[in-house]
Amino acid sequence: MVTQIIEFERPKLKDPLFIQGLPGIGNVGRIAAGYLTEEIGAKKFAELISSHFMPFVLLHETSETHLLKYEFFYWRAKKRGQRDLIIMVGDMQSITPEGHYEIAEEILKYLKGIGVKEIITLGGLNVGEIIIAPKVIGASSDLELIKKYKGYGIEFVAGTRAGTIVGAAGLLLGLAKYHGMRGICLLGETVGLPIIPDPRSAEAVLKVLLKFLDLKIDLSKLKKRVEEMEKFIKKVEDVQKRALVQMARVKPPPEEEKLTYIG
Amino acid sequence: MVTQIIEFERPKLKDPLFIQGLPGIGNVGRIAAGYLTEEIGAKKFAELISSHFMPFVLLHETSETHLLKYEFFYWRAKKRGQRDLIIMVGDMQSITPEGHYEIAEEILKYLKGIGVKEIITLGGLNVGEIIIAPKVIGASSDLELIKKYKGYGIEFVAGTRAGTIVGAAGLLLGLAKYHGMRGICLLGETVGLPIIPDPRSAEAVLKVLLKFLDLKIDLSKLKKRVEEMEKFIKKVEDVQKRALVQMARVKPPPEEEKLTYIG
Amino acid sequence: MVTQIIEFERPKLKDPLFIQGLPGIGNVGRIAAGYLTEEIGAKKFAELISSHFMPFVLLHETSETHLLKYEFFYWRAKKRGQRDLIIMVGDMQSITPEGHYEIAEEILKYLKGIGVKEIITLGGLNVGEIIIAPKVIGASSDLELIKKYKGYGIEFVAGTRAGTIVGAAGLLLGLAKYHGMRGICLLGETVGLPIIPDPRSAEAVLKVLLKFLDLKIDLSKLKKRVEEMEKFIKKVEDVQKRALVQMARVKPPPEEEKLTYIG
Amino acid sequence: MVTQIIEFERPKLKDPLFIQGLPGIGNVGRIAAGYLTEEIGAKKFAELISSHFMPFVLLHETSETHLLKYEFFYWRAKKRGQRDLIIMVGDMQSITPEGHYEIAEEILKYLKGIGVKEIITLGGLNVGEIIIAPKVIGASSDLELIKKYKGYGIEFVAGTRAGTIVGAAGLLLGLAKYHGMRGICLLGETVGLPIIPDPRSAEAVLKVLLKFLDLKIDLSKLKKRVEEMEKFIKKVEDVQKRALVQMARVKPPPEEEKLTYIG
Repeated sequence: MVTQIIEFERPKLKDPLFIQGLPGIGNVGRIAAGYLTEEIGAKKFAELISSHFMPFVLLHETSETHLLKYEFFYWRAKKRGQRDLIIMVGDMQSITPEGHYEIAEEILKYLKGIGVKEIITLGGLNVGEIIIAPKVIGASSDLELIKKYKGYGIEFVAGTRAGTIVGAAGLLLGLAKYHGMRGICLLGETVGLPIIPDPRSAEAVLKVLLKFLDLKIDLSKLKKRVEEMEKFIKKVEDVQKRALVQMARVKPPPEEEKLTYIG
Repeated sequence: MVTQIIEFERPKLKDPLFIQGLPGIGNVGRIAAGYLTEEIGAKKFAELISSHFMPFVLLHETSETHLLKYEFFYWRAKKRGQRDLIIMVGDMQSITPEGHYEIAEEILKYLKGIGVKEIITLGGLNVGEIIIAPKVIGASSDLELIKKYKGYGIEFVAGTRAGTIVGAAGLLLGLAKYHGMRGICLLGETVGLPIIPDPRSAEAVLKVLLKFLDLKIDLSKLKKRVEEMEKFIKKVEDVQKRALVQMARVKPPPEEEKLTYIG
Repeated sequence: MVTQIIEFERPKLKDPLFIQGLPGIGNVGRIAAGYLTEEIGAKKFAELISSHFMPFVLLHETSETHLLKYEFFYWRAKKRGQRDLIIMVGDMQSITPEGHYEIAEEILKYLKGIGVKEIITLGGLNVGEIIIAPKVIGASSDLELIKKYKGYGIEFVAGTRAGTIVGAAGLLLGLAKYHGMRGICLLGETVGLPIIPDPRSAEAVLKVLLKFLDLKIDLSKLKKRVEEMEKFIKKVEDVQKRALVQMARVKPPPEEEKLTYIG
Repeated sequence: MVTQIIEFERPKLKDPLFIQGLPGIGNVGRIAAGYLTEEIGAKKFAELISSHFMPFVLLHETSETHLLKYEFFYWRAKKRGQRDLIIMVGDMQSITPEGHYEIAEEILKYLKGIGVKEIITLGGLNVGEIIIAPKVIGASSDLELIKKYKGYGIEFVAGTRAGTIVGAAGLLLGLAKYHGMRGICLLGETVGLPIIPDPRSAEAVLKVLLKFLDLKIDLSKLKKRVEEMEKFIKKVEDVQKRALVQMARVKPPPEEEKLTYIG
């Protein structure tokens, strides 16, 4: 299987901007993109599944199974100054290094087919301490885009502050140019504990994003929504951790056991 | 190779129901499906082999080699109220995370080709203590199926009791909808020690299963049969454990050894 | 790349018997097959290379590079009672579990194409103590073959003595039937220390093999030849061990190092 | 994705000699090839990207993203006695064993297509102590080449000094013959600490290389250039180390946590 995108509807969009939000440090990207999707009422049109995700299904309270996946939504611009959007939110990132590349490639190939030329990835920047007023730090595949977006409160200092972007948020940008696309990455400063979702950092990222998308949404429910999401996100992480622990738990057989091993 | 299904015979069946039983917690699924296959005299028609299984062969008492595999059996309904069945039992689950996905995909593609639309996976639910009267807990890919099967003594509380289903029993359900199928998972409560097969839990699962399959089989030989199976199952696990230990046993060379390593 | 067989010559052979000898416990299989190849003057006609081997080249004393590989040799029967032979000897076994399956599959597909229907794999059986007069233990993919070969001093008790055959010697037998082939495995009893080649066990295996191949070769140089081979075999193992150690050597950064990690 | 070569221009060259310099012990190969490329003003014509590299992007000071890659440059001979050159420099080596093989194969297939018949790989030879006047040690896929290059100050003693060449520098030679190519490996003696680039060893390798390429370049800026490169190289290694540490950091859940694990 490796990685498959299942399309329910092929939306016709005008020069759509792609926004990606996946779990990561502080779950900043996942929270920001997920909340935006709900508030603007974007419509789901495709799903991505992959053998690079953990091999389990989650169970909803109803006992329905939930396969780990990414979901693609679209939204059409309502007025001048806005752009058609494609938003992708997902349950987890690849558990293998090569999976990160392969999933990013599948996403980019698919986006190219539906006319995407510009992408924005969202994430968190681990700063190691609690931040009252988190800033939004930027990086880009392209110097021109840095100039274009500099005016929106993004500090393009990721290069001096971080050195690298690990995982999907960075790889999508890095691979984009080989598909004729370019993009920026918005990173909200966050304390950096992976299992604590940071709504304040997500809010900072959302505010910057809304500014250049020329969108207004109600941000007051964000904190409450994060608390609801937290339970689901924690479930994925718990199982993942437990599965990894299981693999590490193998102990040598007792000394007196005679090995009749054949090679 | 990855994963191959070798078909000896293509059975013509009427809307067959697929039942999967693989090794896992308490070996509940493997025992229940295996006993059912024997008691109803289902006929083998295909085998699945995979490079995601451990790289060894088992040896029978006769010194014949036994490659790790899954076996597909079919059985035709004998009377009104019954359904044609396909039962798959297997020696082990994938040893790699991506293998779980790939094997499940191969199975689903194959089942689609022979007309399967509904699947049942069997497993154990680890409850951490010895259970006198194990219950059968259900999960489903579909709310409708939960309603349909609720009447048969299945408690659809997996969502609140467990949160996740790890491995083949869950993934098959999760991936089913992308192949136009849907299904339920039946989990027998069990103490949860992986190397101790739990015939009582398997019996509980079988009783529920027999009820909605409208089948009657003799359950009295189950415990004895499990004792016979235990030896074989333990053998697989032992080798697997030992192989993992071998990999973990690598120790650094003594300090005084000079490394003339080239990069 | 995965696994490739490069053929220099396509030998026309009459119902050839295939013999495989790879490194393993006591290097019994590799020694026996290698010595046989040299003594009968079998001719090389193909090589197998694979990305499932360790990623390094060995250096000969001359500073020439040596890529890890398997080599195929053929030999034509000289008199009635003998059979045409294909012998494969190799530098190492797969370092990944799936590689064991994939390499075995490539070998079997290739052998089928040149008319092989029967195979013999050679290996060592770890008995945990030094053996003065090692026995040759057998296993087979087929009850008929057990009957056929029982007369040649092989004790078909692998099933009770070992339970499993790990790696190439077993998998080739297990997968053979899916390609219309069958075979036996000959295991020489050995103390079971992987890095100490056991010429005495190899000699025991060779004697049995020569008996049913109706061949006579000079066994007096075996011990000396093993000493020469030992150096080369040890080199492969040393680098492999060191490479694994290197991977395991990663240590956490010092506590005071501030991580500015991005996700 | 696995491994892709993206070609910007197809250079027409006359019997070009290929030179490879990748990170490794002392970064000798990477430094030597990189410095040569800059000094002779070779022109970039292709890039290689691979899912066998670490899944992150580096960030330049400008906050531009930098995907890990190999870069191919060409240079045309200016006078008799010189040869057309293709030089490949890269950010890192494969993080998986099979990746080493697959990347080497892709490179060789590509080089064959543009007429390369001879290759030179550069690297460091770990000697475990600081060397004032590092020697250049050679290995080759071919006895003839050893004779041809012996006159240039290369000591073809890798076979007695090292035993193996691990990674890309060795594999490219080992696989070359299956593509009708042959080559040598030049190893500069170095203390062998992977994170300390060794400009002195790189200089020794460059001097030998320049001699048989009949090239003159200014070597005085080498040390300064290495200091500039060091920062970038260290960045890659730091992230890689941290990522590996993260994977190793998984701890078992607290004892009192009840596991309701399903299999």
